[in-house]
Formats: sequence, C-alpha cells, structure tokens
Amino acid sequence: MPVLVMKFGGTSVATLDRIKRAAKRVGMEVAKGYDVIVIVSAMSGKTNELVGWVNETSPLYDAREYDAVVSSGENVTAGLMALTLQEMDIPARSWQGWQVPFKTSSTHSAARIEEIPTENLNTKFAEGMQVAVVAGFQGISGEGRITTLGRGGSDTTAVAFAASFGAERCDIYTDVDGVYTTDPRISPKARKLEKISFEEMLELASLGAKVLQTRSVELAMRYKVKLRVLSSFEEPNEDAGTLVCDEEEIMESNIVSGIAYSRDEAKMTLGSVADRPGTAAAIFGRLSEAGINVDMIIQNIAEDGQTDMTFSCPTDQVARADKALTAAKSDRQIDFKDLLADTNVAKISAVGIGMRSQSGVAAKMFKTLFEEGINIKVIATSEIKISVLIDRKYMELAVQALHDAFKLENAS
Amino acid sequence: MPVLVMKFGGTSVATLDRIKRAAKRVGMEVAKGYDVIVIVSAMSGKTNELVGWVNETSPLYDAREYDAVVSSGENVTAGLMALTLQEMDIPARSWQGWQVPFKTSSTHSAARIEEIPTENLNTKFAEGMQVAVVAGFQGISGEGRITTLGRGGSDTTAVAFAASFGAERCDIYTDVDGVYTTDPRISPKARKLEKISFEEMLELASLGAKVLQTRSVELAMRYKVKLRVLSSFEEPNEDAGTLVCDEEEIMESNIVSGIAYSRDEAKMTLGSVADRPGTAAAIFGRLSEAGINVDMIIQNIAEDGQTDMTFSCPTDQVARADKALTAAKSDRQIDFKDLLADTNVAKISAVGIGMRSQSGVAAKMFKTLFEEGINIKVIATSEIKISVLIDRKYMELAVQALHDAFKLENAS
Repeated sequence: MPVLVMKFGGTSVATLDRIKRAAKRVGMEVAKGYDVIVIVSAMSGKTNELVGWVNETSPLYDAREYDAVVSSGENVTAGLMALTLQEMDIPARSWQGWQVPFKTSSTHSAARIEEIPTENLNTKFAEGMQVAVVAGFQGISGEGRITTLGRGGSDTTAVAFAASFGAERCDIYTDVDGVYTTDPRISPKARKLEKISFEEMLELASLGAKVLQTRSVELAMRYKVKLRVLSSFEEPNEDAGTLVCDEEEIMESNIVSGIAYSRDEAKMTLGSVADRPGTAAAIFGRLSEAGINVDMIIQNIAEDGQTDMTFSCPTDQVARADKALTAAKSDRQIDFKDLLADTNVAKISAVGIGMRSQSGVAAKMFKTLFEEGINIKVIATSEIKISVLIDRKYMELAVQALHDAFKLENAS
Repeated sequence: MPVLVMKFGGTSVATLDRIKRAAKRVGMEVAKGYDVIVIVSAMSGKTNELVGWVNETSPLYDAREYDAVVSSGENVTAGLMALTLQEMDIPARSWQGWQVPFKTSSTHSAARIEEIPTENLNTKFAEGMQVAVVAGFQGISGEGRITTLGRGGSDTTAVAFAASFGAERCDIYTDVDGVYTTDPRISPKARKLEKISFEEMLELASLGAKVLQTRSVELAMRYKVKLRVLSSFEEPNEDAGTLVCDEEEIMESNIVSGIAYSRDEAKMTLGSVADRPGTAAAIFGRLSEAGINVDMIIQNIAEDGQTDMTFSCPTDQVARADKALTAAKSDRQIDFKDLLADTNVAKISAVGIGMRSQSGVAAKMFKTLFEEGINIKVIATSEIKISVLIDRKYMELAVQALHDAFKLENAS
C-alpha cells in the first residue's frame, strides 16, 4: 500500500480536542488506502517546560540527560494519538524513537540521522496496523542512549521517514495554511503559493519565513521528498497548503516567488582595516570561533592600503562579536581603527528560481527602493536571491513596494 | 563495591528543590563507598495528569498505549535526578526500563517481573558511574513494548533491583518516617518501630497501613531483601526509619507489633442459606467472578438445615456484590432469604509475630473491647493476626484501648 507521512506540530496537538481533530485528518487518508506514518511533536508548551527544568537543574547540562528528559513530551503525544485513532476503530500503534529504531549519531541534542530501518513498522503494517504514530524529534545512538535532533527536529523526522519508506508525500500540518509571497501581516496583498521549489523554500526558511525547519527542506531536496505545508485548523481539501517540490514539477517558475524580511539583523563595520592577504581570514576566523552567524560580507575598495569591512549578523550577537574583535585587536591578530554597530537595520530579500534565467531583477529591486526614497546600505546576491540591508523604519514600506513591483499578488 | 538501592516516591521528587534534597541523600551514601541504584517515581501529580488524559481520550484504553504514555513521568524525574547528581560532581546516568533492560511479561499495566540482567549497569559501574538513576514502575516486554507494573510499582521496582544486584539494603524514601504501632493521628501514643518482620508488614500493608506496596514486601520476603522505610523530609541518621526484615533478625519479637484499622470494610449477611455441601463454593464463586475482594468469612451453626453466611468486602463493592448474589438467586444457583449489608463497620486488627508462640492475645483483645462496651460483630484470625469488625463509631476508641492494652507505647 502507498505510504503517506503526516506531521503534526505542537499547536496542532496542544489539547486532547486538537489531537482528535488531527486524528480525523489521519482517518481521511487511511480511508483513501494509505498506510500512514504520523509524526507528532510534544503538546505545545511541554518541551519548553522540560527544557526549563533542565536549565534550572543544571545550566551546563549533560546533553545525554537533556535528551532523555526532553524527548518525553513527544512520547506522551504519540501514545494519546494512537489511543485516539483506536477509538475511531483505526488500528494504530505508537512508536518511540528507540522502538523503530531511528538510528542517529551520538551528537546529543543535535544528532545526525544515520538510518531508519523499515522492517519493524512494515511488519506491523503487514499484520494490519494502519497507522504508526512516531514520536518526533528523537532517535537512539549506537550506545543505546536517547538522542534528539534539536529544536524543530520533528519536521526533519517526518522527511526522513518519508524518504526511508518511499512515501508518496510528506504533509506538514502546522498553524499557517502555506507559504506566502510575503508576510500577510505586512502586505495584505500577500498570496498563498500553490507550489514552491526546494531551493526557494530554503532561502525563505533561512530568511525567517519560519514555516519549515531548514534542515528538513534540505533533506527533502536531497531525497526528492514531496513536502506539503498546510494548516490543521482549516477544512481539508485537495488544494490545501503549499507543495514544496522539485523545480521540475513547477511548470512556469516565477521570476520572484517571494519577498522575505528579517528584523533581527545588525550591520557591523570595521573601519580602516589593513588591505592585505589574510585580513578577512583573521577577522572571520575569530568571529567563527566566537560562534557568530555572519550573513552578508562586504569589503570596500582599498585606499592607501586601508579598507572598510562590513558584515551583518543577528542583533543578539553584536555584543559577542564586539568582544571577540576587540580581543583580537588586543592580541594584535587584526588591526582596525574603529568598530561601528548599526542595529537599526532590516534585511529585505527577493527570492525566485526564475532569476537564473531572467536578468533585470536586481535593477528593478534597486529602482523600486530608490523611488520610495529608501537608501540601500549593503547588497548581497546569490543565484536565486537578492538581499539588501536598509533602515529598519522602511521595512514595511520596502516589502509592500517590492511585492507590488514584482506583481506577486497575481503570481501563480 | 557494595550496592545500595534507594527509592524516592512522588512527593520526595515533587519539585526541583526536593530532587536536590533527595540527591544530597544519595551523595551521602556514595561518600560511604556504595554503588547506588536510585529508583524514582514521577513528580507527584504527573502520573495522575497522564492517566487523566488517557481516560479522557479512550475510556476503554489499549493498555499498551496507556503504558507508553504513563511511563513518561518517571523518565523525566530520572533525567533530572541524574543532572542534579552530576551538578554535585557525582558520575550519574539515567536508565529507562528498556535500557536496563527490565524484562517483564506482556501483561500491560500489571506486568510481572521476569528478569533484570545486571550486565549493562555493572559495566557502567566498572567504568566509573557511581549512581544509576532508574525510572521506576516500567519495564519492557518480549515484544519490545513498554510495560508498567501498576500503581505503586516503583516500590516493587526498587526491591527487584535490590534482589538482582544483591544490594546490601533497599531504602524506601517516602513522606512518613517509618512504620508505627498504629496511626499517630488516632493514638498520640503511637510509636515508630525500629524493626518489623516481613510477615507483619504484609498484614499491616494489606490492612491499610499504606507505607509500602504489598507486592514489594512479598518480593522482599521471597528474596530476603532488607527494606528500610524512611522519610526524605527528616535529617538523615543511622537509626532513621523502620527496617523491614526477616524474622530471624529481630532479637525479641513483640507479641503484638501494631494495631491496624480499616474504615472501608462492609459486612454482608446472607440470611437462611441452605446448609449443604457446595453452598459456600457457589456463593464465593459468584463473588469472585464479579471481582469482589472478600476478606473475612463467617458461617454460623446451622439450625433446621439453614445457616447464615456473613462476609466482609470493601464498601465500594457492596452494590456489585448485591447484584451478583441477587442474579445468582434468580439463576437458582444459590438460595437465601435475605441479604443485609452493613456499611457502618470498621475492621480492627492486632498483628504480631509473637502470637505464634504466645497464647492469650485473642482473649486479651476481646476483654479489652468488652470493657470499653464495644460489641464484636465478626471475628477472623490468622497465625499472626486477629481481626474484628465493630461499629465504625467505636473505631478510634478501640484502637486506643488496644494500643494501651498491649503496651505498645513501650514496645521496642
């Protein structure tokens, strides 16, 4: 029988009533003849409670024990979901990570997936089980210890199961009804996309469109797992949600599929850095050691053997970056005259597969912002994305103007 | 190194502070040179919450899923306790039932213990682990499913580990500081016993002295595990608590060790039953089929081929017993004239190993009650126990009078 993977996030299983609602969705797919693998998160709030206890008990906790404690939330939901399905006369069984067994590396709290043997579940499917309810986010290491994949790991669990079992599709039920051309709270013209490519989704996810965990999209792309994002709070229908799929399955790619933004980016500039080989390596080596997530990097043209170096990083890492660079200056590892931080910026990005074949996207973006009187502070581009840093106060205006300029309200 | 098993109940691990307090006790035993196995219950209230969810989801739940859900409470405590010990620089590790593996039968929610292989824990002890924190109450079936031992199963888990690892002692930390000659709320003269035999403890436990689960005492008796019951809320000292041990380790047995009572017993009388072979078998067979826990049974002398049959059972089973017996009468399986239920009774018992060798205990008990003007409705005796049913309004008076009569305030 064809296999379908359905994943329900924390808000979709937050109460017994919501678990019942989710179970009804599962029942509809069972009725269509699927063997269903349901991946569940912990009831919303539960994981935070457990993490809070661990942090209070041991601020520098042993990750093995963190995993043992925190994984218990998903076990509860898996059992309750199995019971709910049984009440609907659907043969269901819960599976904890170690029972599958979902084999991972021993990197506790951030484990890598190694293998998901299909034998145990397939034997039960053959015996009449119609739904396997799997506790998301958790696995088992070679040492027989419980591991977790890190926050958001339930999406990744779902995709990994879909890949291992050759599922027809992996449906991710969440509290939004799909992927939008931009944030509807900022532009009322935002429109739900029917389809989006893996590559575009990756750019959107890492830019703050928090619909799917980046890692799960990467995994889906590698194993060509069709992902569908949809809301568990809407009436079900065939066209619900957004399909995240291979580029080839999208007939006519949009030049620009979406406008993303991020509020929590800061711009840092090192003034008068020596323009010689090794400077960039020294600066970004130190930042990397300090765990700073550097995003955009711009180096100005040198004058008199000196240059300015600008980069962006999350706002809450500015103090740490400052400390690391100042220490590097004291150690005479790097030299610069001054260090300026601008936390009053926002990042706006236009993302689209069509950019590969269509030119003029950057020009149109810059012209649109210019016409609105918005100054661009930093520019960075990739094959399918153009990002700019601007004053934060213009963020909404920029998003709306670009959404209009690229006619996203009509995109298909 | 000698092994010590320490068990902490739900109230002893109800909060992070209490877990810390319990961990300090564990630290003291580690300092004495023990390898310690700690058995933990769920934080108090957690198991009830989980059971509530299961019942709401599925009133006739699948016990396999009940076990999967309900066992998660202990997993949380085990991880938190391990983290707390690590914070104290004590090498500790948590163990869920399946990791040990604690092998049980497949009778979910009431599993029988089959085997506790010592290899996994002993390997870790040899590698430097000083404390193994084991989630109580749970095991794993031959099918790889999580099982639970039933409510109170953590005491049983502790004793089973003590037996398997040849522990020097099994300390049960709870919210009372030991076993008393009677309930201190009823008699202010009640005194804590230093030692009590397994047999006496069994009689007291099943009579409602809810300090230890009956099953754990039976297991301790069979494997000669020294059990100590003590409070986790008192300052630790060598003489703390009550030692439950083999009769031979008690130098001078008390004739009577304690006076127990139970409020929730009812007396039922079948009037004018035919006095012929098979009558008792028919009556108590039907009651057994209906799941009635019959305790005392008395048959009066027959007159004219008729007799009265009296038995006691828990008050909340009276309606069910009535229904079963009335049905049996309709089926002509048994015959009686009337059926009287008296729910206004209490059971008082004197328990003591010394009764075996000393006579006159029953006489002294009856005389004491007579002198207080208390009428005895039913009498039942065993080798080390004498029980009577009396009017419930005299319960406190009877307990106090018997406690005095047997001089229990001076017992050792």
